[in-house]
Amino acid sequence: MALVTLTTDFGTADGYVGAMKGVILRLAPGTRIVDITHDVPPQDIAAAAFALFQAAPHFPAGAIHVAVVDPGVGGKRREIILDDGKFRFVGPDNGIFSLVCPNVRSGYHITAPTFRAPVVAATFHGRDIFSPAAARLAAGSFPSEAGPRVLLEGSLGGRPLLMSRGGQQVTGHVVHVDRFGNLITNIPADALPARAAVRIGTVEIPLISLMYQDVARSQLVAYVGSCDTLEIAVRDGSARDVLELGRGEAVVVTGRGESPP
Amino acid sequence: MALVTLTTDFGTADGYVGAMKGVILRLAPGTRIVDITHDVPPQDIAAAAFALFQAAPHFPAGAIHVAVVDPGVGGKRREIILDDGKFRFVGPDNGIFSLVCPNVRSGYHITAPTFRAPVVAATFHGRDIFSPAAARLAAGSFPSEAGPRVLLEGSLGGRPLLMSRGGQQVTGHVVHVDRFGNLITNIPADALPARAAVRIGTVEIPLISLMYQDVARSQLVAYVGSCDTLEIAVRDGSARDVLELGRGEAVVVTGRGESPP
Amino acid sequence: MALVTLTTDFGTADGYVGAMKGVILRLAPGTRIVDITHDVPPQDIAAAAFALFQAAPHFPAGAIHVAVVDPGVGGKRREIILDDGKFRFVGPDNGIFSLVCPNVRSGYHITAPTFRAPVVAATFHGRDIFSPAAARLAAGSFPSEAGPRVLLEGSLGGRPLLMSRGGQQVTGHVVHVDRFGNLITNIPADALPARAAVRIGTVEIPLISLMYQDVARSQLVAYVGSCDTLEIAVRDGSARDVLELGRGEAVVVTGRGESPP
Repeated sequence: MALVTLTTDFGTADGYVGAMKGVILRLAPGTRIVDITHDVPPQDIAAAAFALFQAAPHFPAGAIHVAVVDPGVGGKRREIILDDGKFRFVGPDNGIFSLVCPNVRSGYHITAPTFRAPVVAATFHGRDIFSPAAARLAAGSFPSEAGPRVLLEGSLGGRPLLMSRGGQQVTGHVVHVDRFGNLITNIPADALPARAAVRIGTVEIPLISLMYQDVARSQLVAYVGSCDTLEIAVRDGSARDVLELGRGEAVVVTGRGESPP
Repeated sequence: MALVTLTTDFGTADGYVGAMKGVILRLAPGTRIVDITHDVPPQDIAAAAFALFQAAPHFPAGAIHVAVVDPGVGGKRREIILDDGKFRFVGPDNGIFSLVCPNVRSGYHITAPTFRAPVVAATFHGRDIFSPAAARLAAGSFPSEAGPRVLLEGSLGGRPLLMSRGGQQVTGHVVHVDRFGNLITNIPADALPARAAVRIGTVEIPLISLMYQDVARSQLVAYVGSCDTLEIAVRDGSARDVLELGRGEAVVVTGRGESPP
Repeated sequence: MALVTLTTDFGTADGYVGAMKGVILRLAPGTRIVDITHDVPPQDIAAAAFALFQAAPHFPAGAIHVAVVDPGVGGKRREIILDDGKFRFVGPDNGIFSLVCPNVRSGYHITAPTFRAPVVAATFHGRDIFSPAAARLAAGSFPSEAGPRVLLEGSLGGRPLLMSRGGQQVTGHVVHVDRFGNLITNIPADALPARAAVRIGTVEIPLISLMYQDVARSQLVAYVGSCDTLEIAVRDGSARDVLELGRGEAVVVTGRGESPP
């Protein structure tokens, strides 16, 4: 049984997501559909890329990940299928997949009529292109049947998962703020000095903890989070609200008298 | 494998939707359940009707569409099953299905004990009547086994998908505002003059475009949307916020020197 | 086909829930996953317990209910599996299951490596412990294989589903406010006197009705709700907004000249 995941900014109050599911189940009836999220902030490609980065890798090999946050719908950006050898990704060529498969440089431009609805609304490629294409893959077609292989053009800009390193300092920034107000950075665990202080805004956190419980309630805590990158939180509270900081904020980690590992 | 869709105003923070799914899966274990939406504004039957109109037609034939926005629960309105030959619809007789199957005038009143829970809470027919009835259909029963055939009584009032036409003018109104702030009207594409201007509130949009990208950022644009009706949007913005207009607003389309097609 | 339900406070805008689903489907591919809710207010264990109480009992026997509202994640509270003979429950030992299986006093501490991810993030046991454990159960393992049997330690405090009774009076309190603003109490239907008045805040409702329609629009109404406990609502309105009262508020039911049944 094929598995298709959905990630969009359509929200769940309109019928748009239901229409996509209907199309997929009509064209590939046995498909299992799993929602990753439909609550990406409207047109926020970077947030969708991050949600995919958090969730998509955990699915079984062969899963088809559809992502539609698509401010350029109906314009010049292409509709593509990526294949990283483990998963297929279906969506607009606008950088939305650049975190989850950073090393894939080319994809298939979805041009074959069998991969698209007979009539395509200029404003709803989620229903009329990406869902039929995903259903076609779910039914066993190869990505190469969708159309010509093309180099990817889309990008998120700003290389949001890279950081710079110099001497005893590692500099990154906040790439996501989750529902709990935790600030998730792009500084990977293996770039952290063994003993280090963390600076964000005007605040310095003197050490990196193993877990929330290492600090008292309402205190700031820096730790390695579930994405295996540095996160900043307030125990039983919201770092976003306490610090009044959000995505894009710079974060500097400074080692204390030892070389980074 | 039978397919049941759900459309409600229960939200997703309470256990109500979970209770419905539990009942359906207990009575018809093989059923596939797909959410259309649970975020219909509380008691807004017209919004539920519109979500069904957007989503339900795309599902495979044989799907069972359950919709529960039911301000009259426990009162005199009847519980019904409609059958339009392609889909079955299960819900209150209050007009909720009047957009998605406008030509169906009768249904089956759900009175058979096998289509209802042994004890029915006066406030939760979603769990105690509509879910058991849907499960019964999913397990292979016919709608006619649910109870007597009755003429439908419910209606949305205001005939929200009809519009008037006179000479060079077509007049309709906004029937839905989606998450992006797009204003979706009830004026079907095939009623639009070939060259036309669109007036809404105090604003006139001089022509109907093919897609958002035909106008500059932050500009108003009128186009045929994914429901195949006229929509009004702001490119990379929200027409609702820019115009400060919403559902019910009148929209007038005026042809420019040619007869409507 | 095994059935796993999910109840969390993760919201649906991040990739956390998607990650859990991916893990479960990777480890137990045939599993059917059903969302109860992910919109529990952050860290509100009592609200999660109530959502489980509303929804979980309706599922078919054998269902595996996973619940993760877990302010103590990474700390000393244990990860457990409960078995009440009909369902299995997987989550933190913090009282989250105390309404849905109030008579279960012991569970299995999830310590077996096969029930946990090889590497466990201190902040995301939902992904790294509770999902693998649920998948293991879905694939046919017994709860006793997860680890040693332990007495439960967690509790909600305040015994939120109990109430006191004395003479002609029954005293309880509001344990949940739903999306419609209905105030759901912990006073069970069978504790209500045959003829009674209900007092909440400074308001007295002179009788208990059978349904909303027994009162006029915008009027307060007390009735037995779908949880089989006393509820207080405003017909076609919100009791929460009208009364400006919420969870924890005391509710007193006074019989009128007869003994309670």
